[in-house]
Amino acid sequence: MADHDPEKLKQKLHEFALGFPFFQLIGFEVLDFGPGFSKTRIVLRDELKNPNGVVHGGVIATLIDAGITQAMLMTDAYQQIRETKGMMTTLDLRVKYLRPLSAGSLTCSAEVPRIGKRIAHASALVTGDDGKEIAMGDSMLMLMPGK
Amino acid sequence: MADHDPEKLKQKLHEFALGFPFFQLIGFEVLDFGPGFSKTRIVLRDELKNPNGVVHGGVIATLIDAGITQAMLMTDAYQQIRETKGMMTTLDLRVKYLRPLSAGSLTCSAEVPRIGKRIAHASALVTGDDGKEIAMGDSMLMLMPGK
Amino acid sequence: MADHDPEKLKQKLHEFALGFPFFQLIGFEVLDFGPGFSKTRIVLRDELKNPNGVVHGGVIATLIDAGITQAMLMTDAYQQIRETKGMMTTLDLRVKYLRPLSAGSLTCSAEVPRIGKRIAHASALVTGDDGKEIAMGDSMLMLMPGK
Amino acid sequence: MADHDPEKLKQKLHEFALGFPFFQLIGFEVLDFGPGFSKTRIVLRDELKNPNGVVHGGVIATLIDAGITQAMLMTDAYQQIRETKGMMTTLDLRVKYLRPLSAGSLTCSAEVPRIGKRIAHASALVTGDDGKEIAMGDSMLMLMPGK
Repeated sequence: MADHDPEKLKQKLHEFALGFPFFQLIGFEVLDFGPGFSKTRIVLRDELKNPNGVVHGGVIATLIDAGITQAMLMTDAYQQIRETKGMMTTLDLRVKYLRPLSAGSLTCSAEVPRIGKRIAHASALVTGDDGKEIAMGDSMLMLMPGK
Repeated sequence: MADHDPEKLKQKLHEFALGFPFFQLIGFEVLDFGPGFSKTRIVLRDELKNPNGVVHGGVIATLIDAGITQAMLMTDAYQQIRETKGMMTTLDLRVKYLRPLSAGSLTCSAEVPRIGKRIAHASALVTGDDGKEIAMGDSMLMLMPGK
Repeated sequence: MADHDPEKLKQKLHEFALGFPFFQLIGFEVLDFGPGFSKTRIVLRDELKNPNGVVHGGVIATLIDAGITQAMLMTDAYQQIRETKGMMTTLDLRVKYLRPLSAGSLTCSAEVPRIGKRIAHASALVTGDDGKEIAMGDSMLMLMPGK
Repeated sequence: MADHDPEKLKQKLHEFALGFPFFQLIGFEVLDFGPGFSKTRIVLRDELKNPNGVVHGGVIATLIDAGITQAMLMTDAYQQIRETKGMMTTLDLRVKYLRPLSAGSLTCSAEVPRIGKRIAHASALVTGDDGKEIAMGDSMLMLMPGK
């Protein structure tokens, strides 16, 4: 992986995220990311809320899922999978809802502290603009490098 | 709850779902539902896909989350919460991804087989048009009737 | 796998379980099992209880974990792993506690309805002598056949 | 809760753990604990191992479950439940197995960083003698103070 220019890779991935249709639909923004971490955001708008005025659980789950993927993209493990035409599969996603949010934005800090040979363990914390915790999540991903 | 007309309640809830902005955004459709079960759907379109052409994990999580809520709405437990101005809170949501899907629709069958005094346990299965399993999910909800 | 005699395999595995020290310590009994299912049991005794007289959560988790493994042993997938000197790894275990139990026995019905190429999804239900549900559990296992 | 002497409470709880039959059976030791944290241990012995010589998954689940409970005991939330004859219920337990262990001891660091009005969120990390991570776990507990 010596021939990677991390800054170019980051820029390329960031530009991709900006134009990605699902992210535009949901309002998912990448604030920062690197190998094994990401900071992402969704600004609340009425379209993302439940009838009772709080953000829909699916929006939070989407933010965490996308934030964790973003944290994986620049890891050596994922770049190796790309280069060998292997596969990365999200095995599961769990979200624990801590507190409702009715205004402002959801900021998600994701990290992947444990990347084993086959399995990566990721986690994420979602906070509101006042720093209060809205949700936390975790995910297991299976790494299958190609030959 | 003797004064409820279940058919009227169902119709009212169904109409609500049809006009609900988040459901329209994501393309979430309620096919059928009743006390403790629901059948819901999202028809895939490019906007809901990952770069590799398969449905985004957040879309599946949203479908399961919304499908489980839909399965709760007509239960006695939830209607009691509504009448007493109590609260129902989703504690967590877990999704296990079984198989990617790149075309057609996602159909979610959700059920709530266990509704205790305080906690309800829900589960859901998502299949593709060929009946193959795409994902399964489960959720714990906390029930807090008002006074 | 044509040369396996399933009855001999089952008898061999059952005898093994009877003499297995950890199972004797905890009181874990195999009532029945086959490819993809098991029925196992722990009879409550004071040593397995919490100060408040109900069974310890760790005992239930152990019963589910061991019950799920027992349900895997006779599957083709696991036998293939044995023959090729591959590995089966339990990725995770989740237990949901439904109801306390203070007397009688815990019976666990485990099944493995989904065995993919790499991942098997197992689940289990624990009931008391009156049939009431005490806990449910689920587990993901990674299958790595040898060469 | 002003009239509690934390040191006396801690000593009382520690002595209790020392004589507790299930802990003796499994070999569960409390090394340290306080409000919202605990450090506990199980020294491996052959009786706790699988046929392949590594610690049984149920032993790890038991260590995490008991470690998390130990971390709850001195919290204000739990002491209030005791004083009001309320109830604390473990809703679920999840264990992620990271690495097998075949010798030495399992040390579990548990914490309860989020104690809400109704739900407490706990987590735990299990390491071997060389500091390598063996498993991690998390649990949701429901708090129901009495009147």
